[in-house]
Amino acid sequence: MTDRAAGLAQSLHRTEPQLNCFAGPFAPDPGLEALLERSTALLVEWLGESAAHAPRPALTLEATVAPAAHGLDLEELFSGLRGVMAGAYRPNHPGALAHLDPPALSVSIAADMIAAGLNNNLLAQELSPSLSRLERRLCHWLSTRVGLGANSGGVPASGGSLSNLMALVCARKAAGLAADPRAVVLTGSAAHVSLSKAAAVMGLPPDGLRALPTDANGRLQPEAVASALTQLRLEGRKPFAVVAVAGTTVQGTVDPLKALAELCRREQLWLHVDGAIGAVCALVESERWRVDGIEQADSVTLNPQKVLGVSKPSSVLLMRQLELLHSSFATGLPYMESGDGPQGGELGLQGTRAAEVLKLWLSLQHLGLDGVERLLAGAFQRAERLRSLLRAPQLQLLGGDLHLVAIGLQPHLAEHASAWRDHTHAELQQQGFWLSRPDLNGRPLLKAVLGNPCTSDHHLEQLAAIINRSARELS
Amino acid sequence: MTDRAAGLAQSLHRTEPQLNCFAGPFAPDPGLEALLERSTALLVEWLGESAAHAPRPALTLEATVAPAAHGLDLEELFSGLRGVMAGAYRPNHPGALAHLDPPALSVSIAADMIAAGLNNNLLAQELSPSLSRLERRLCHWLSTRVGLGANSGGVPASGGSLSNLMALVCARKAAGLAADPRAVVLTGSAAHVSLSKAAAVMGLPPDGLRALPTDANGRLQPEAVASALTQLRLEGRKPFAVVAVAGTTVQGTVDPLKALAELCRREQLWLHVDGAIGAVCALVESERWRVDGIEQADSVTLNPQKVLGVSKPSSVLLMRQLELLHSSFATGLPYMESGDGPQGGELGLQGTRAAEVLKLWLSLQHLGLDGVERLLAGAFQRAERLRSLLRAPQLQLLGGDLHLVAIGLQPHLAEHASAWRDHTHAELQQQGFWLSRPDLNGRPLLKAVLGNPCTSDHHLEQLAAIINRSARELS
Repeated sequence: MTDRAAGLAQSLHRTEPQLNCFAGPFAPDPGLEALLERSTALLVEWLGESAAHAPRPALTLEATVAPAAHGLDLEELFSGLRGVMAGAYRPNHPGALAHLDPPALSVSIAADMIAAGLNNNLLAQELSPSLSRLERRLCHWLSTRVGLGANSGGVPASGGSLSNLMALVCARKAAGLAADPRAVVLTGSAAHVSLSKAAAVMGLPPDGLRALPTDANGRLQPEAVASALTQLRLEGRKPFAVVAVAGTTVQGTVDPLKALAELCRREQLWLHVDGAIGAVCALVESERWRVDGIEQADSVTLNPQKVLGVSKPSSVLLMRQLELLHSSFATGLPYMESGDGPQGGELGLQGTRAAEVLKLWLSLQHLGLDGVERLLAGAFQRAERLRSLLRAPQLQLLGGDLHLVAIGLQPHLAEHASAWRDHTHAELQQQGFWLSRPDLNGRPLLKAVLGNPCTSDHHLEQLAAIINRSARELS
Repeated sequence: MTDRAAGLAQSLHRTEPQLNCFAGPFAPDPGLEALLERSTALLVEWLGESAAHAPRPALTLEATVAPAAHGLDLEELFSGLRGVMAGAYRPNHPGALAHLDPPALSVSIAADMIAAGLNNNLLAQELSPSLSRLERRLCHWLSTRVGLGANSGGVPASGGSLSNLMALVCARKAAGLAADPRAVVLTGSAAHVSLSKAAAVMGLPPDGLRALPTDANGRLQPEAVASALTQLRLEGRKPFAVVAVAGTTVQGTVDPLKALAELCRREQLWLHVDGAIGAVCALVESERWRVDGIEQADSVTLNPQKVLGVSKPSSVLLMRQLELLHSSFATGLPYMESGDGPQGGELGLQGTRAAEVLKLWLSLQHLGLDGVERLLAGAFQRAERLRSLLRAPQLQLLGGDLHLVAIGLQPHLAEHASAWRDHTHAELQQQGFWLSRPDLNGRPLLKAVLGNPCTSDHHLEQLAAIINRSARELS
């Protein structure tokens, strides 16, 4: 670095001259190295002491948010950081079972650090030459592995809500219904709230998203879709897409994808599979049966940030016809050179994007197919094990196809359900377990998500014992 | 960790038993520590040798994307990673001046690593207790600092395209025009392409976004807006928002915000300021004049990922009335406990989100207000310096208010402009400089973005010498 540039960088920090604000391009920066080593130590310590804390910490002091007139030194920075970390949720606590938020894969953490350092922009190939190509090719591998065929591909999205929205925008465009107020999307009543958001953002009328009744296990039945279609067409509406769910939020049920795909083909409707939770099963032979039929979808949301443990955000929208993604979102980038494929910022809603692909790629390379298989199998086995341990006759487990266990009381105990649920939840929390408290069709439930690889058989036995005892005390 | 859990984690990787896939909760994980230390060394080395390479590397070998049957060991992983990094764009190369992609602040890199390790979910407070509070409070600080008042606040977004989209969804909702095909948004012809995307996603009709002619410097004039309003209302349309730009993509010009705000107030239109590039000026007194009037906006996009160097993605949508963000996007989260404020996933388009706030907070704490000031001043000074060095009479510099310099030939040399631009671009590239080649209203330009703190006076002199000589050779 020239003297002047070095002077500028150093002058940005008074009290820690060895820590430049930016790493210079002429020599390895010892300040950055020291900072990352110290951050590594802090993070490794935090992760390694999770079991000594609660999964969800008590409230802590609030951090200062306004920057001071002069920047803080490293001691002050790390002191603030420790405070925030003390109040963070601990996804690798063995009792952290409330939601679809597993701990992050170690290689994913490393990849996020490197991606931040590269700071490449996936908007356009000239700003991320190797990463743009990696992204296109990995998305193509994922979509063909799911079974979407030779013209398929996809694009990463910063979360499943964006993937679902992009899919519906493509579906509407493909149906020639852009800006048509008659357009309607059909889904089941257990579908994710992100679909309501998508409908509002897209300017669909308030009844443009129809949440149809499901069977007792939350599955959308083709018959319900068929009769809704008849009715809608009588009313002069234009149904253009069905959203099937591969893994509902509360029960983890998978809609009958094959039958819904047949119906959609017959009726010329777009089939989007919201597989944020379950689509990852299609990546390995041993679990593929759980999402049978997914290969017939027009688009699929797949979230490696869930059971695979790739750090957030990591979602991918996969498309049977990649070209439709481009024709739905391309606006031209007149200030960019062309690349050797469609520009990353023209394949979806986001423009400037980080290299989220790096952690997904590195995680898959590190796990290998057998690692993916074992991660999934571990989650499903824990769920099976918990189901088999929950033996109190007062309990009723709700059907599910994945690694979620929704726990209610038998219908004849309905009047106790709410008090029992809250009481048990509190007792669990005292014992270091954290489950969530969803309501499903007005029914109070406890929900356990078994995606945490740090949860052992021993923990599941403890957990079941508390729930069984608490249920038995009701009679 | 129990024996079984440890066994599971270790069994996930055959050849590197010391590297567990996940860090356990019972003791610091030496495998994670070693992995992060090695990644640190790789990244520090990569950043420190940038100047020895080209800003934009030549094409490299393609990485393997399909995971193998068995996972790779660390040597293989790092070998693949080195390949990808060899083909990555180098934002801290002194000659990397093509786009709005500066190198990442060192503390931002550290914060991204820690955020990945925490893997907290900003969807809901129970999944990110301290981080949810930090996010709400930091967004409130930003919005009040910009001048949006006591009821203001905001939400981070994974990129400016999402911030702009969310703002327009709120504006349409506030105007009572959700799903109304008469709705129209007005902006200038130099506005960002993300607005076209937003209009398409929102289901506005093809002419629902009107790009009005600007003055010679790319500025949207209130008179143009006023006459378009008259015409639209005669046609029975419902204009509901004006998008003013604080920093256009090619020139970095700022629209007359004060005058546009007055017009919008009079006409009861929403004023969104797309300040992805320039709004950050409002954070410090010395640069605030550049975006004078921004405090009168209804919503503002502010991207710390641009001139501040916070690693991507880092954008924030700031709202005069935070409540409108909630009422536009809340869908209910029936499977979550309530928090001590609106849930992060109900304040915008995204649901599950990473803790992007952590790096923004840590960066601002580290820089302090004077650090922010010096970063901005540095960029503006480099732009001024380059302008003053570009003295060849054949050149014409296009007006701009920020740190972008758009360089064309004088109008009488128009027939040479395209060949000259491409020739000069190639010569610059040979000398280690990378500028971009935008077309502005059909006019071929070179563009330099002076946001790279590693670019010294010496580099600017070299750069200007090449451009001056190349222009002088034309006569």
